[in-house]
Amino acid sequence: MKHELLFLSRTKDVFIAEGIKTYSSRLKHYTNFSISTLKEKKKWHRTKSLKDDQGVLLLKSVPTGAFTVALDSRGSQFSSESFARKIEEWEMRGIKQVNYLIGGPEGLSSDVTGSADLLLSLSKMTFTHDMVRLFLVEQLYRAYTIKAGEKYHK
Amino acid sequence: MKHELLFLSRTKDVFIAEGIKTYSSRLKHYTNFSISTLKEKKKWHRTKSLKDDQGVLLLKSVPTGAFTVALDSRGSQFSSESFARKIEEWEMRGIKQVNYLIGGPEGLSSDVTGSADLLLSLSKMTFTHDMVRLFLVEQLYRAYTIKAGEKYHK
Repeated sequence: MKHELLFLSRTKDVFIAEGIKTYSSRLKHYTNFSISTLKEKKKWHRTKSLKDDQGVLLLKSVPTGAFTVALDSRGSQFSSESFARKIEEWEMRGIKQVNYLIGGPEGLSSDVTGSADLLLSLSKMTFTHDMVRLFLVEQLYRAYTIKAGEKYHK
Repeated sequence: MKHELLFLSRTKDVFIAEGIKTYSSRLKHYTNFSISTLKEKKKWHRTKSLKDDQGVLLLKSVPTGAFTVALDSRGSQFSSESFARKIEEWEMRGIKQVNYLIGGPEGLSSDVTGSADLLLSLSKMTFTHDMVRLFLVEQLYRAYTIKAGEKYHK
């Protein structure tokens, strides 16, 4: 199963970018994983809000048939173990690709949250979107070590 | 009010250490803040488990009268806004120092969690203790920007 993260812009914090690189390369030993940084228009042909325009960009970047997970603090929380079981469930359902959608400073549009297959909350607290990226990659890596029965996750 | 984080060992991930440094220096513009890295004995005079010995070290490093917050995934979750309100509540109660206790790989001993004034959970998910440190420093910084009515936290 392929996991693809959709980023609206490049990761600005250098130390976070470093962390994402570290965990991405570890994760790739276990599964097909990629990050796509979408190109936002410098000047949007603004008909709606920035959040709505970003939502359109995110949704058109999701391949047909992919399972979509939108990161939203109002979503469901999982323990690391239950998130690992969730991934196994997706595999058993024959899902080939999961796309993770992370919003900008204003969050995700209702078009994105409304159409997502799962709303996932990492914490009740608000973190920078850069940090959310790092947390998610680390949790994906942790999930695969849990699935493999390895020591890291303890 | 002073916030002091007690770390059981130095932060191993270089990128996390970098992030902690960044947010610590930002936080210091708002409040008295420090991190104490406790010195674990190379060879404990092991009477109990490592977790218990670490618990003893943590508890004896807390100054008399300090308010203690133990990081534990079974603890209370707060939104960033309600965490900021919590800090204001402590200030109004005249608390002079808050100590944050973060466990090692085995977590915190029941002596620590049982005697803490607050059990705080950042997420249902498990993160590395290095990451927990970074999350906490970022949330403290965020709380002070919320208290100051500043833009960062959005």
